[in-house]
Amino acid sequence: MIKIYGDMQSGNCYKVALLCAFLDVPHEWIHTDILKGQTQSLEFEKLNPNKKIPLIVLEDNQTLWESNAILNYLAEGTDFLPESTLDRARVLQWQFFEQYSHEPFIAVARYINVYLGMPDDRKQEFEMKQAGGNKALSVMEQHLKENQYFVGDSLTIADISLFAYTHVAHEGGFDLGLYPAIQQWIDKIKADPKFIPMS
Amino acid sequence: MIKIYGDMQSGNCYKVALLCAFLDVPHEWIHTDILKGQTQSLEFEKLNPNKKIPLIVLEDNQTLWESNAILNYLAEGTDFLPESTLDRARVLQWQFFEQYSHEPFIAVARYINVYLGMPDDRKQEFEMKQAGGNKALSVMEQHLKENQYFVGDSLTIADISLFAYTHVAHEGGFDLGLYPAIQQWIDKIKADPKFIPMS
Repeated sequence: MIKIYGDMQSGNCYKVALLCAFLDVPHEWIHTDILKGQTQSLEFEKLNPNKKIPLIVLEDNQTLWESNAILNYLAEGTDFLPESTLDRARVLQWQFFEQYSHEPFIAVARYINVYLGMPDDRKQEFEMKQAGGNKALSVMEQHLKENQYFVGDSLTIADISLFAYTHVAHEGGFDLGLYPAIQQWIDKIKADPKFIPMS
Repeated sequence: MIKIYGDMQSGNCYKVALLCAFLDVPHEWIHTDILKGQTQSLEFEKLNPNKKIPLIVLEDNQTLWESNAILNYLAEGTDFLPESTLDRARVLQWQFFEQYSHEPFIAVARYINVYLGMPDDRKQEFEMKQAGGNKALSVMEQHLKENQYFVGDSLTIADISLFAYTHVAHEGGFDLGLYPAIQQWIDKIKADPKFIPMS
């Protein structure tokens, strides 16, 4: 059985848990607390030299890290990863958008607010994250006004990657009321019988 | 013939040009200057709602953006993208590492220094990028001490993604003399007869 090192409060980790729920992937979840320094130990560094979660360990002890790489690995051969080369590249396009243009604003603002409790010395950084986060949400809104999902006409790992931090964006100070198409897309994913909440 | 919108001084764009050189992919290069606002026009926004380069337009006018998604698209079926699911995921692991843990430090420091000419109001940001950039270089050095390439034993798009900004990291204030395994890997890539320089 694969082992997943993660924290369900982290959107990057929750992505992996959510895909496992949709695909019924048996796994052992090893709760890993970054605030307690559990990713900074020498033992953990042997598993991921970049000292981050999520991380998976396969049955033969091989490791794989980076949330979106893990999603691509687990989704191979399922409906969550399209077959055509262009559609697969489009999934990656949205996943790289998520990691570069979305997560560093929305997830970091949420981290400052929820994990760190908005300390005074991070307030300015929190405020500075709002413009970039709203830009990313606007790009998503524009796409979802004309499309049901991010790639093709069914749920893929592109949606799962973007859903993770978007559905809790209000915790980073973002008003999802401004983005009705995103809200509909969130509601549709939450209504799936296999959906599990971030917890 | 595919069209590539890019700027050869940008590592993200150069990645695509370098892979095209290695694979002999015929293409039309459309020079796009971000400092002149050429990615911010309404016309450009229709091609990429996220208003960034690189971007490719296929022969049937379909578009694809995000440098690493483009590399995966172009490399499909070639030696630059392995066949096994785990190796493909490992390529993505290093590409997501590059976009999240490497590029925002090394490329941004270089941008402030080379593109913007180190204005006073960005000096502090430049300094703050040094620790994260060196952390990324250390992760790479550790891997390259024990491996010839990032995935498997030949050049893949994981190497191309990481090469782009690493080989000009000195322009962002980083001392590559501290990383001998990275230097050897850079020299090996540069020695390939199909190599083209950033220009």
